[in-house]
This record gives sequence, structure tokens and C-alpha cells, in this order.
Amino acid sequence: MPKVSHITLPGGFVAAGVACGIKTTGREDVTILAADREAATAMVTTRNQIVGAPVIWNRRLLPRGYGRARGIVVNSGNSNVCTGKAGLRDAETMAKLTARRIGCPAEKVLVASTGIIGERLPMGKVRAGIAEAADRLGHGNDAAALRGIMTTDTREKSAVVITRIGGRTVAVAGIVKGSGMIAPSMATMISLITTDASIRPARLHRALKAAVATTFNAITVDSDTSTSDTVVAFASGQAGGRAIAGGGADYRKFLAALTEVCGELARAVVVDGEGATKLVEVVVRGARSDAEAKIAAKSVADSPLFKTAVHGGDPNWGRIAMALGKSAAKVVAEKLRIRIGGVVIFSGGTGRTFDVKKVRRHLGGSEVRVDCDLGLGKGRFTALTCDLSREYIAINADYHT
Amino acid sequence: MPKVSHITLPGGFVAAGVACGIKTTGREDVTILAADREAATAMVTTRNQIVGAPVIWNRRLLPRGYGRARGIVVNSGNSNVCTGKAGLRDAETMAKLTARRIGCPAEKVLVASTGIIGERLPMGKVRAGIAEAADRLGHGNDAAALRGIMTTDTREKSAVVITRIGGRTVAVAGIVKGSGMIAPSMATMISLITTDASIRPARLHRALKAAVATTFNAITVDSDTSTSDTVVAFASGQAGGRAIAGGGADYRKFLAALTEVCGELARAVVVDGEGATKLVEVVVRGARSDAEAKIAAKSVADSPLFKTAVHGGDPNWGRIAMALGKSAAKVVAEKLRIRIGGVVIFSGGTGRTFDVKKVRRHLGGSEVRVDCDLGLGKGRFTALTCDLSREYIAINADYHT
Repeated sequence: MPKVSHITLPGGFVAAGVACGIKTTGREDVTILAADREAATAMVTTRNQIVGAPVIWNRRLLPRGYGRARGIVVNSGNSNVCTGKAGLRDAETMAKLTARRIGCPAEKVLVASTGIIGERLPMGKVRAGIAEAADRLGHGNDAAALRGIMTTDTREKSAVVITRIGGRTVAVAGIVKGSGMIAPSMATMISLITTDASIRPARLHRALKAAVATTFNAITVDSDTSTSDTVVAFASGQAGGRAIAGGGADYRKFLAALTEVCGELARAVVVDGEGATKLVEVVVRGARSDAEAKIAAKSVADSPLFKTAVHGGDPNWGRIAMALGKSAAKVVAEKLRIRIGGVVIFSGGTGRTFDVKKVRRHLGGSEVRVDCDLGLGKGRFTALTCDLSREYIAINADYHT
Repeated sequence: MPKVSHITLPGGFVAAGVACGIKTTGREDVTILAADREAATAMVTTRNQIVGAPVIWNRRLLPRGYGRARGIVVNSGNSNVCTGKAGLRDAETMAKLTARRIGCPAEKVLVASTGIIGERLPMGKVRAGIAEAADRLGHGNDAAALRGIMTTDTREKSAVVITRIGGRTVAVAGIVKGSGMIAPSMATMISLITTDASIRPARLHRALKAAVATTFNAITVDSDTSTSDTVVAFASGQAGGRAIAGGGADYRKFLAALTEVCGELARAVVVDGEGATKLVEVVVRGARSDAEAKIAAKSVADSPLFKTAVHGGDPNWGRIAMALGKSAAKVVAEKLRIRIGGVVIFSGGTGRTFDVKKVRRHLGGSEVRVDCDLGLGKGRFTALTCDLSREYIAINADYHT
């Protein structure tokens, strides 16, 4: 995990992060990411039916999830969720203030907020913060820009991939915040991605949706879905060359780079999961379809009994079989094969004798892999989760609104 | 909660519970409940696709979920799940041994097992246990019979209701075991219900399904579904009178009594939930349908963030709104009203100022009530859950298979 964010490494972007006093800790809490010119922009937002004011604003700007925009302003420390019409005006004001400074209409600036919910933003502080961040926009502030979107995150999470597409060097960079659904009252997964690739908005959106499906949408810390989850990708086109067409080798290369960045960020979110001590990969194959494989994998990854067993280093195949069996995916005990760390522990409808020491050693490490072959078809999906520890309870029960 | 089981209070039943050494603790681990004659019998079993051998056996006996049977033999300490064909033979043997002693074909005896999974039953001990239990069948062993179905339960859970139906005094009694999905490796909810009401098998089944829908199927300790959940009701008809017909006042009275028994037992399971310190009632009304109300209520009751907030005594409406919003039930923030302990804390799309001391006092008690009015229709459902504590993690992470 690089310690430094590279969000402005792709050509055509500037960024800044400043502290304006929303957070009581004095850490950065306002970030602006701006493109030099209008950039192809694609967005994926939460499926929760209760959404924050910034999500409502962004959906107005990009009703189909893509279009052209100049940038995004993000604040942390307050999520501007369930704040009514006044909250929506605050989101709009954030866009307006930013737009005025970078020289574009408010409708070209997206907004994201993360932190406590149900409280109005301290707009005096936000106003000052946006002004200061706009003054500092440049290439040397990537780390501060990353910190400006963080809440209870314990790690700085960023990723960058450099590749060749259509004879041009293309960079894809991303930052993300999130460590459980909560924090302090309800946190959020926010990810910003920049690239200098030349790609049209609709195609960028298609690539982003595909990349998110197998990365951000494959992780689960606690099965809860934030009201503010937002992933935004900006493509400046500064790498030059012809716009990436759909379906060809160039598109596949771009999608691979984007998926790699999203995958690294998604992994980092799980590793930073509340109370997590292990990263757990649940691979389901042999399902009747990819969709059923996803349902089965998520059922295991979300099961508190499975997650506590992993925490305790217990090779408990019963809990894995139970979680598969309770899911809406077709499962037949006799066809099921379960491996932990590559060792078969269940097959033919019953537990096998296995090298317990070897499996316990694997479970004792920081990365655990569980393979479930349903033996029914070709569907597959990999879910990422973490273990469930006392620390999760401590973080979530002892925090008071 | 009565400390003594009354499972043989309804006329026409005998029971016994003995210790045969499956449990290393020396506690009772084999229970037989037998009707003097063939009784109307109805059964509801787990929806998990991976099921234990006893569930397979019972489904063979009662393919439509009802019929006539003489009784059930239960062992605790070993669930006989994922034990292959040998396990199924063991279940059949348990039925045969019991049938021989009470004088009926094996096909008239149901079987239930609960405890560790994936291990063969110690059939020598089971055989001796069944013989001893059969010898002791009578009316003075209800408490031992209840203990014989328990695993990690910390409380003895039973209920009895006496009512008048069609001019006759009718008793409905029940016992239940279960405290989380697990324990020691994967536990089970098993409930046995007896009544001396005169009712045909199909009608008893219909009543049992209706009663279970709003009681046992409304509770959640950890969102995991056991591979062995079984509820069986036996009706001896000894109360006399005409068989209870469908739809009339007699049926409604019987259903009310059965629902009361199931409700009391279900509540007791939640109170005995692993690590639970509070009983939490989540009432959803105003949903578009009862089905959507159930989805919404269960989404809240299953949310680890909600459950940890309750554990911490935190009036965190954000987590409740989040859990409702992420569910498949239709939710509109502006129409939603949330109350804790009767105090409105969220309405009109945002949090209200409320008497924090009063709400915290309510959350500090042993019974917590959360009301969510979705404001969209007439659907309603009440889910029962418990809080999520460090103790849950301790129980489930520190246990080793």
C-alpha cells in the first residue's frame, strides 16, 4: 500500500486538502479534486433508499450516472444525511463555492460528505475551507487531499496503475475512505479515481460499473450499506490518442487497469475494517450462475458465525456449510467441497480428516482463503471480508451519538 | 418463565429425559416424548438447504409436514448433521429403538438431534439412553425431558396455556432449546409442543405454520439459520369434543393459544441469545405489505450496527434508518417515523430534538422497543432480537471445533 496518494499523477488534475474545523481533531476535512478542463465523469452510488444530500445533488447532475464535470468537493466529519431541504441547499452551496473558484457552473461540480449524520454542516467553516483548498489546488497536496476525505480510517488508502493503451502511457489513480459502515455515526465509502485516458463518459461509466461489481461490491465488513457510498471516476483525456472504443483490446486494457485500482482500494478498505485482524477471501465456484455464486459467497462473508470462527482460528466447516445452505443460491451438500488454505476439509456431504495443524496455521495468518466448490455449474465469485472481533463491538457499542 | 416444563400437562402424553453420556458434562442428553395413541402431528423444519439426518428422516415420515405419529426421540450433544448415509441409518435406528419400546412402527417416531456437527453419534450410548428413557416414561419427568434437549442454553424454556375450546378445557404446552445458531459447533432451535385438543393433522399443520410465522420466524439472534431447526406439535385429542374445524371461532381460539405458547418460547430463545443482555422488539408498521414489513423489521433486527448501538445504549436513529433503507422493502425517508421507547426521534426526513435522558433510560433497561412507521401502507410485522455484545464474540470465536 503506497503511503502517498497519487490522485494527481494522471495528467490534467489538481487537488488540495485543508483543515477547516469540522473535525474536532484539527485534521484535514475539506478536499477539492479538479480537472483542468471538463473531464469525462462516471459515478456509482449507494443502493440504500435513504441517501445523503450530496448523493441527491450528484444524481441531479448526472442522472444517467455519467457526463462531463470539472471536479468534486468533499468534506469529512459530517455526512449531510437526513438534513432535509436545508441540507440539500448546503450541498448546492458547496458546489457553487467551489465552482466559482475553479471557474465553471455549479452544475459541473459534484459533492460528497462523510461523517456524523443528521446534523447541519457548519457552513461558515465549510465556506472558509473551500476557499483555502481552492487557493492551494496543485500537484503537491495529494496526501492532504486523501486525509481530507477520511473519518475513522486508520490507514491512508490509495492505488495507482500505469499502463500502455493505444500506444500511449495511461495512468489510473484512486483514493478511498471507509472502515465499516459507521464512524462516528455512519460512515461511508467514498472513492475518487482519476485517469488521463481518453474515454467518453458513457464508456467510462460502463467500465466503472464493471470494475465496481467485482471489487467494491464484493467486499463486506458488516453487511450494512451506507447511505452515502459514492465512487466517482474522472478521465481528463490528457494521455491523448483516440478515445477508447467499446469492446476492443484498448477497452479491455483500460478496464483491467481500472479494476486493479478499484481492487486494491477495496482490499484496503477491508483490511482497515472496524476491528479487523484478518483479510478473508471467500471464493465460490461451481455455482449454477455467477449471480448465485455471488449470493453464496456473500452469505458466507456476512455470516457472524463464520467471521467469529475465523477470528478464533477455528477450521469450522459447519458454519461455512450452514451459510452456503441458508443462501438463496442452490447448494447440494453431497456436491459441495470446502477448502481452507487449499486443504479440503469437507466433501461428499461430510467433513474430511485433514491436517489440522496446517489449516490452523493458515487461519492464524493475516490473510485467509476459503474455497467453496458447489459442483453444480460454472458460476464463480470472490467476496472479501474480515473477521469479527471484540474490537468491532467496542468501536460500535461504545460510540455514542 | 416457569422453571418447570409442563410438556405432559396436556392429556395423553408421557415423557422422560436421561443422561447417557453423549454430553461430557453428565447432563441429560436423551429425551423421549410419546403419545398414548397416535396423535395428530405437524412439523415445521429449517429452510437451510443443508439439513441434518433427523430432518431427512422426519420429512420422509411426514412429506407434507403433517400426519399421525406416536412421538419423538431427541438427543443433545451431537446434531447428526453432515454424517452421510451412516448418519441417516443412525437416525432410523433411534426411531426403531424407540418404536420398539413404545409399541409402534419406526415410521411413527420422529427424531431430532442437536449439538456438534459432522461426527457420528455414539450409538452404544444412544441405545442405552433410549432404553432407559423408555423405561422412565411418565408424567414426573418433564423437567428432565426439557434438559435432555438443551445444549448451551443457559435457561430452561417452556410455556403452557390453558383455554376453553368448544366447551372443553384444552391445554397447549411447549418446550424449546436454542441460544444462537451455534453451540458447541452448530446448535439448533428445537421445539416440542403438545396439546390435548382434538384437531386433524392438516389443520394442526396450518395452525402451526401460522403460529411459527409470527413467533419463531420473527426472531433473530445472529441472522444465521441452523441446519436442524425443527418445531413439532402433537395433538392427542384427549380433551374430547368435536375436531376443531377450519376458520371458525374454535380454530381461532386454538391458534391464539398455540401462538401464545410459540411466542413465549420464541421470546425465551432471544433472551437466552448468545451474549444477549437485552430483548429488542422491532415493530414495523405502515409498510406496503406485511411481507415488506417483515423484510424491513428483519433488516433492522439483523443489523450488527443497530445491535451494537442498542448494546451501547445509544439512541442512534441513523443506523435504524440505514438498515430500513438498505432492505428490499420500500422506504421513503420523508415518510418515515422512528420511535424508541415511544419517543419520536426521527420524522420528516430528519432527526428530532428529543428527551435524550428518557430514551437512554429506556435503552438501559432489559427490554427495548423500536417502532418504525414507514407511512406507506398497512403492512406490519414485529421482529424480536437481542443486542450484540463482546460476549457473543467470546462465545463464538473462542470455541474450537
